[in-house]
Amino acid sequence: MNTALILFAHGARDPEWARPLRRVEAAIRQRVTSVAVELAFLEFLTPTLTDSVAKMAAEGVEKIAVLPMFIAAGGHLKRELPEMIERLRAIYPDIEFVQYGAIGEHERVIQAIATASLEVAGLPLA
Amino acid sequence: MNTALILFAHGARDPEWARPLRRVEAAIRQRVTSVAVELAFLEFLTPTLTDSVAKMAAEGVEKIAVLPMFIAAGGHLKRELPEMIERLRAIYPDIEFVQYGAIGEHERVIQAIATASLEVAGLPLA
Repeated sequence: MNTALILFAHGARDPEWARPLRRVEAAIRQRVTSVAVELAFLEFLTPTLTDSVAKMAAEGVEKIAVLPMFIAAGGHLKRELPEMIERLRAIYPDIEFVQYGAIGEHERVIQAIATASLEVAGLPLA
Repeated sequence: MNTALILFAHGARDPEWARPLRRVEAAIRQRVTSVAVELAFLEFLTPTLTDSVAKMAAEGVEKIAVLPMFIAAGGHLKRELPEMIERLRAIYPDIEFVQYGAIGEHERVIQAIATASLEVAGLPLA
C-alpha cells in the first residue's frame, strides 16, 4: 500500500522551533526512501495537518500514519487530534488514517532522553 | 560537588501527561544513584521549578542542572526559563545553576525519535 508518514508537531511562534523536527524528518527520509514523509503542525507554523493530507491525497496516498512528535499526550493528542482526523476521514474516505501515540512515550525515546540527560549534565553513564 | 538534576517539563492539565517523564526520571535514577533527580513543571502540575529548587537548597545542593524535557526550544526556554533561573540565582546565590538546551535537540534523541517513528509505523528499519 502507498503509505505516507506525517510527523505531527505542536509548532511555536518562533520558526527556529521546528529545527530538531526537521532533523528527525531528514533522518527518516535517509532511511526510508520509498515512503513520503512530511512534518505538519498543530499551530503557528505551516503546513497544517490539513495542508499535508491534501497534498498527499493529490499524490494518491492510500494510508497516512500520523505520528505525534510530542513529549507526552495531553488534550492536543487526546481530543484535538482525533477530532481533526475524524474530519479528514470524512473528506477523504478512501484514505486510511492511523493515529499513533506521543513519540515521547516510546521506550526507545525514554531511554535516549535519560542517556542524553546524563551526557549533557556530564554525569557518568553507569 | 553536590549536584542535582531537575528535569524541567511543560506540564498539562491532565496529570497522566507526566507519565513518560516519570519513566525518564526512573531511568536516570536507576543509573545515577548518587545524584538527586527531580521532575518539575512550568505549569499545571507540581512541583514547580521554584518548589524543587527550594527543596534541593534545603538539602545542601551546590549545583543544579536544569534539563528541559522539551521537543524543541520556543519562548518557554528562550525567555521564560532564563528569567526564572535569574530569579532563583538571586534567591540562592551559593547555588550554581546551569540551564541546558531542549533535550529534543540532542542527536541521540533525534535518532531515537526517527527509529521509534519507523518502528511504530511498521516500516523497515533500513
